[in-house]
Amino acid sequence: MVSEKMYQLGSKRSTIRELFEYGKKRAQEVGKENVYDFSIGNPTVPSPACVKESIMEILDTVDSSTIHGYTSAQGDLETRAAIATYLNNTYDLNVKADNFYMTCGAAASLCISIKALTETKEDEFVVIAPFFPEYRVFIEAQGATFKMVPADTKAFQINFEALEEAINIHTKAIIINSPNNPSGTIYSEETIKQLASLLDRKSDEYGHAIVLLSDEPYREIAYDDVVVPYVTRYYKNTIVCYSYSKSLSLPGERIGYILVPDEVENSKAVYAAVCGAGRALGYVCAPSLFQKVIAKCVGQTGDIDLYKKNRDLLYENLTAMGYECVKPQGAFYLFMKAMEEDSVAFCEKAKACDLLLVAADDFGCPGYVRISYCVEEDMIRRSFKAFEKLASIYKA
Amino acid sequence: MVSEKMYQLGSKRSTIRELFEYGKKRAQEVGKENVYDFSIGNPTVPSPACVKESIMEILDTVDSSTIHGYTSAQGDLETRAAIATYLNNTYDLNVKADNFYMTCGAAASLCISIKALTETKEDEFVVIAPFFPEYRVFIEAQGATFKMVPADTKAFQINFEALEEAINIHTKAIIINSPNNPSGTIYSEETIKQLASLLDRKSDEYGHAIVLLSDEPYREIAYDDVVVPYVTRYYKNTIVCYSYSKSLSLPGERIGYILVPDEVENSKAVYAAVCGAGRALGYVCAPSLFQKVIAKCVGQTGDIDLYKKNRDLLYENLTAMGYECVKPQGAFYLFMKAMEEDSVAFCEKAKACDLLLVAADDFGCPGYVRISYCVEEDMIRRSFKAFEKLASIYKA
Repeated sequence: MVSEKMYQLGSKRSTIRELFEYGKKRAQEVGKENVYDFSIGNPTVPSPACVKESIMEILDTVDSSTIHGYTSAQGDLETRAAIATYLNNTYDLNVKADNFYMTCGAAASLCISIKALTETKEDEFVVIAPFFPEYRVFIEAQGATFKMVPADTKAFQINFEALEEAINIHTKAIIINSPNNPSGTIYSEETIKQLASLLDRKSDEYGHAIVLLSDEPYREIAYDDVVVPYVTRYYKNTIVCYSYSKSLSLPGERIGYILVPDEVENSKAVYAAVCGAGRALGYVCAPSLFQKVIAKCVGQTGDIDLYKKNRDLLYENLTAMGYECVKPQGAFYLFMKAMEEDSVAFCEKAKACDLLLVAADDFGCPGYVRISYCVEEDMIRRSFKAFEKLASIYKA
Repeated sequence: MVSEKMYQLGSKRSTIRELFEYGKKRAQEVGKENVYDFSIGNPTVPSPACVKESIMEILDTVDSSTIHGYTSAQGDLETRAAIATYLNNTYDLNVKADNFYMTCGAAASLCISIKALTETKEDEFVVIAPFFPEYRVFIEAQGATFKMVPADTKAFQINFEALEEAINIHTKAIIINSPNNPSGTIYSEETIKQLASLLDRKSDEYGHAIVLLSDEPYREIAYDDVVVPYVTRYYKNTIVCYSYSKSLSLPGERIGYILVPDEVENSKAVYAAVCGAGRALGYVCAPSLFQKVIAKCVGQTGDIDLYKKNRDLLYENLTAMGYECVKPQGAFYLFMKAMEEDSVAFCEKAKACDLLLVAADDFGCPGYVRISYCVEEDMIRRSFKAFEKLASIYKA
């Protein structure tokens, strides 16, 4: 009676959700203070004050039909213009309001972009491990083919040899995500340059533009002044998928955008296909009140120092305990090597210590675990004894 | 480089949008007061006071991470429970929070439901003319087959002979929309009973449940105490697609739901497929602040009497001028017979009088036009001279 694929997708929870639900149940049994849940990436830093202030101001000064009415499918002109100005000033770009299509968040940005680009099911979207597991769902659901490039486990940049091998005549796009979920690394300028050069060469070789889909919800969450290169400046066929979920701590409000710069080959046609895909997937417009909030808060962020504090606390203590960790440069995830080859078994042992870690197998990187540190600092401190206990199992 | 279908969808504006954009341009030339734009269905009645009050209260009493954080994919339990209680009390149903899946509005509700149900491209979704033109886009984009049943132009109920002919072994679902856009009619209890009996018989004949998708964004917009039957009470395999766009005048906020009652065959599997389809289309959760607003405002509406006033004003004056109109029982559309066979040509003549009416050809009902009366009363009054002028062309 129903689509078997949709049934499977809906009845099998993701590993992350599964663990998160377990954590809530376990907390009822042993007390919330005794469960150390590092499973989920829900921002804990509050939205900056401008969010609440903007909502109040809009409610007090704009009439109801304008606040809550349909915007154009592309989004409010004022919002798109504000974003363009901000990006031009910050990254020295040359984008215009008409290059933007407002969306219901990063997942929508990705699904719409993939749907817009997919011509046949032979079209391949290449993702680079470790990667956000929903990429596979989004690609396959839009009727395209998912292809994975194994991780560069030395520096968590890009394994270029494997990437070059993965690209062929069917390659439609490469999806990158930097700052990265789950590794916490940021692709360096050198990485981006090398990627651009490879894609230019391969586009020439196969006679069609290979698109770079840059999924950037963590762009502003970078530590120690590490620079996150603005990808459109290095590779012309770049489409940016953005969300305000993390920068403004608004994950539930579903607000983001797709940027199709003029430099993209046939950019007008690509933009039109984006509009068409949005329509086909049932996205009428991005939430209107929050479009207006974005126009007022563009460029602001929550207090990212709070995440940095958590990073330092965890990284220093876990490495001192003998854990091998990738030092996060951005996002709010710590990527740690499991103390045995089987990361799922390792996470099960962690779970027995009431330590909820996500095995990175679904992220295309077995042998590692993801620790989400958008949590209370106090929970991190309390969790150390559990981390000690877990490590001691392997020292015995 | 892009999907040809998505490009076509994105570059060809709908007739309605085309006319709406023309209206804005024309207003700049001849003055806003001289253009009578009846093209678009954007609610003009303000949201009820509870919307603003609820937002203020939530901002003042709930912490930022809870207001703006991810909800579960199904939606906040509190919101779903509030909707269930309201519907049980109002329509004497027996639904629970777990029967609801919160969505980003009616278009999302429909796309998700269609995607959940579609197994192969042979699966047919039957729509009854006149119908909202995006139904065709939604059905075809989810990979199913669109099938239209011609209008019952006598009473604008259902042409049952034609519907019976349209149903076959491939029929997956029938989509109905009452109060109807564009006809303004409401399916009577007799119509719903006859429909239920036909679908029961056909489900038996073909050995599978034929689903009734009831698209109900106009449910509360009904005049003269006409009853809008609650369809799940008449046909067990009914899935309700709802939106708060019209009842609370929140079309831009993208908030609605899908209701899968327990009575639906394999309801747990259907609900799971709905969750899977939401995930596959990139819907992570419905906007979180407005989920909380709905929990507080469920059952309220904007001032529907304002629409009724407009209806009476238009209906009385246009019929007096010799126009043949279907008397609207609900929604905010007046369906009028064109004064010549070619409704597109008729609308062109109307446009020459600065009267923007939508030819119903795209609604599957050539020979008719849709007049959207969610407009300022004053514009209606000013438009009468243009309607007179238009009618006079045909009296000559």
